[in-house]
Amino acid sequence: MLTYALEDGGKETLMEQLYRSIRRDIMNGVLKAGEKLPSKRNIAANLGVSTITVENAYAQLAAEGYIYTLPRKGCFVSEIGLGRQPEHTSRPAGPESKAAPAPAPEYFADFAGNQTRSEFFPFSIWTRLSREILSDSRIDLMTNPPSEGILALREAIAGHLRDYHGLQVDPEQIIVGAGTEYLYGLLIQLLGPDHRYAFEDPGYRKVAKIFRSWGINCCPVEMDASGIRVSQLREKQADIIHTSPSHQFPTGITMPIARRMALLAWADEQPGRYIIEDDYDSELRLSGQPIPVLQTIDRHEKVIYINTFTRTLASTVRISYMVLPPHLAGLYRERLSFYSCTVSTFEQYTLAAFIQRGYFGKHINRLRKNYRELRDRLLAALNESPLKGRMTISGEDAGLHFLMKVDTRLSDDEICMRAQKKGIRMNALSHYADAATKSSSHTFLICYASLPDDRLREAVDRLAEILI
Amino acid sequence: MLTYALEDGGKETLMEQLYRSIRRDIMNGVLKAGEKLPSKRNIAANLGVSTITVENAYAQLAAEGYIYTLPRKGCFVSEIGLGRQPEHTSRPAGPESKAAPAPAPEYFADFAGNQTRSEFFPFSIWTRLSREILSDSRIDLMTNPPSEGILALREAIAGHLRDYHGLQVDPEQIIVGAGTEYLYGLLIQLLGPDHRYAFEDPGYRKVAKIFRSWGINCCPVEMDASGIRVSQLREKQADIIHTSPSHQFPTGITMPIARRMALLAWADEQPGRYIIEDDYDSELRLSGQPIPVLQTIDRHEKVIYINTFTRTLASTVRISYMVLPPHLAGLYRERLSFYSCTVSTFEQYTLAAFIQRGYFGKHINRLRKNYRELRDRLLAALNESPLKGRMTISGEDAGLHFLMKVDTRLSDDEICMRAQKKGIRMNALSHYADAATKSSSHTFLICYASLPDDRLREAVDRLAEILI
Repeated sequence: MLTYALEDGGKETLMEQLYRSIRRDIMNGVLKAGEKLPSKRNIAANLGVSTITVENAYAQLAAEGYIYTLPRKGCFVSEIGLGRQPEHTSRPAGPESKAAPAPAPEYFADFAGNQTRSEFFPFSIWTRLSREILSDSRIDLMTNPPSEGILALREAIAGHLRDYHGLQVDPEQIIVGAGTEYLYGLLIQLLGPDHRYAFEDPGYRKVAKIFRSWGINCCPVEMDASGIRVSQLREKQADIIHTSPSHQFPTGITMPIARRMALLAWADEQPGRYIIEDDYDSELRLSGQPIPVLQTIDRHEKVIYINTFTRTLASTVRISYMVLPPHLAGLYRERLSFYSCTVSTFEQYTLAAFIQRGYFGKHINRLRKNYRELRDRLLAALNESPLKGRMTISGEDAGLHFLMKVDTRLSDDEICMRAQKKGIRMNALSHYADAATKSSSHTFLICYASLPDDRLREAVDRLAEILI
Repeated sequence: MLTYALEDGGKETLMEQLYRSIRRDIMNGVLKAGEKLPSKRNIAANLGVSTITVENAYAQLAAEGYIYTLPRKGCFVSEIGLGRQPEHTSRPAGPESKAAPAPAPEYFADFAGNQTRSEFFPFSIWTRLSREILSDSRIDLMTNPPSEGILALREAIAGHLRDYHGLQVDPEQIIVGAGTEYLYGLLIQLLGPDHRYAFEDPGYRKVAKIFRSWGINCCPVEMDASGIRVSQLREKQADIIHTSPSHQFPTGITMPIARRMALLAWADEQPGRYIIEDDYDSELRLSGQPIPVLQTIDRHEKVIYINTFTRTLASTVRISYMVLPPHLAGLYRERLSFYSCTVSTFEQYTLAAFIQRGYFGKHINRLRKNYRELRDRLLAALNESPLKGRMTISGEDAGLHFLMKVDTRLSDDEICMRAQKKGIRMNALSHYADAATKSSSHTFLICYASLPDDRLREAVDRLAEILI
């Protein structure tokens, strides 16, 4: 007869204690395969518990396959293949574990990140809208959206694209997803992993990382002063190119119309060629009008337009979208609409209301004003510092970073290491090059979007100490 | 001299009108490459606008590369490669567009979806928590989280796994992502696309779709009454198997311990073999205790545990997570931590608070009670209907669906089509088979989670009409 010391009123119920005790004995081999267990009534009497308790414990053991029941014969221990002799203690990740994260250094100023300024986020309106939606749109919030995202958000985006970029698109062409990185993955599936993908060099490193992470055939394409070199696309037999013609990262180049036409002409030459136009921060152009996007001069459905709210709202709200040419939108519905939309309906409805009621337009204007002032203060401080006359600033009108070329004999790596020691994180242009041909260009990216006002002057002082 | 009829006080500013007029003339070839534009002062006088207006229009044209400036010589039209003769009108997606979506039929009752009941979502607590976080945690909300998700949420999940599943995991092993489908993509990248992936047949169709969408080498593996047939994994030379041992979809099988041991033994035989344990609805087991998960008896870091909040919270809140064995968690940090976390910090902090303050535990208990009552009412109604005696119900204790085998001579396809005509969406077990060997098993899935109370009796009446 099984005898266990069950403890009434403990953390576990009697049933749980009994279940675990028997399971342990089966796993230890104390109870052997084929062995008959005592009848429920007997064991209940023996242990001083109710038959219901025993019944429930046996039922659980049977549900998990530790024991089996033969009608009118009773319960028996299953053959569970103890050859493996598993330990029942789970393994905590000890200090030897590889899973331990690298400690994240805290920077005094981070000129290399995509972090946005927390005080620029429209908290009060966002809070009001999300409260309203949580109270008034409960059924909508709980209804599975189409794979492309809720219609209200896609309509709002289409309206924004029309008003702000002069882009006429049907909401049916728009696919909403949890960040641009996720959309790249969808595009690889949509266009096919067997094509040759190209990316700008120097360029946005994540694109290359994502292509390589998926084992995609891909290659870097060099830039000249007008942007990507179209001749290289032909030489390297690229099918698909990722590019940011409005404001290339990191060079800041705005691709002139002639190069845009040449790029489109390349895409038109053969079926299967596409241009992924990543317009990641064109809304934050700080002077002049927004630059017309490639897709507005695309006649042959060759351009896939991608944009994101992670720059204009917050890097921590993961909402991006892409505009597919009609034939690709059709292909998406055929092949990929089995995917659930990766953005929660809560945030989709909030953002749709935010755009539709005009808050987004006002927010962009305010952002541009704030960032313009921040940039101007930073440039003024640089010009009043010992760096004056020893640096050249470029690309300061488009987007949230500019380039600073410095008169120095130190290598780019040395400078960035010195900076790190002084609590400044920054990258050189050469760090965004793909190949090992990273020669020092003495040109550094200053991504100033997250720089707090009260650290501006001190950050400039430290930059001057580092660079001179 | 350029002469345009500019309209003051119109929708566009004078500068915009001038910019567009010149651009149009360049694109039309009226202004030819190399041609000198009138001086700013002259054109301003001619058109009766300020020189600032002309300056801004020229600056925008220059920024986009339509014109260029030679110092002390003036502005000239660029060579833009007009060979392509682009149209400047964007193409609206017309009726011929393939992008038009299929009209979504509205069902009276949907027994095939994963939709959850809107009234079961804890709106009042969720609203309160998100308001609190929007007001008190602004800096946290705006700080980029690590790729794996915010620590507070991973700690809360580790606590839940400990309390609810007896699983001891380090928060560093947990990766949070926007839905299980997204996590599958991460896993393909982590384990490598060159392995052979296997999935259960019949099984959760999306897994196979995702593998195939990525062009992954994959194969179905047959089931018997205890779950996946381990011998087939060897025959088919699978490296990685996706399985739901707690509650297989759609068969409802709970894998007994002997089969679990055999599956682990298979994985242990060779390096590179892994088991993806998809525990999608084990929290919603309606009777008995939750079944211990495979990972608790895994000694050799072979099991990747995946679970989701899309079943317990709402299908429209996209938060899932996976628990990687320590060596894979290390590999993730090395190779994939460049990805941004796909869940917004707003929802991560809200969910972390929801779990940590004990609301999630209570919510699961309430859900199980509600779903148990719903299931019991549905089973009672079926047993009072003409279907009584002509159907066999199984798998009604685990998760949010059960199987109904019906005594009928109609084919599965015929029955589902009849159902559709009566506003009932349902699938047969045979529809989840991978191969073309879809023989009618007369067994149907009843996913009742979204069935409204007031439609229950009518839905049963319609089922009886369809099936008899």
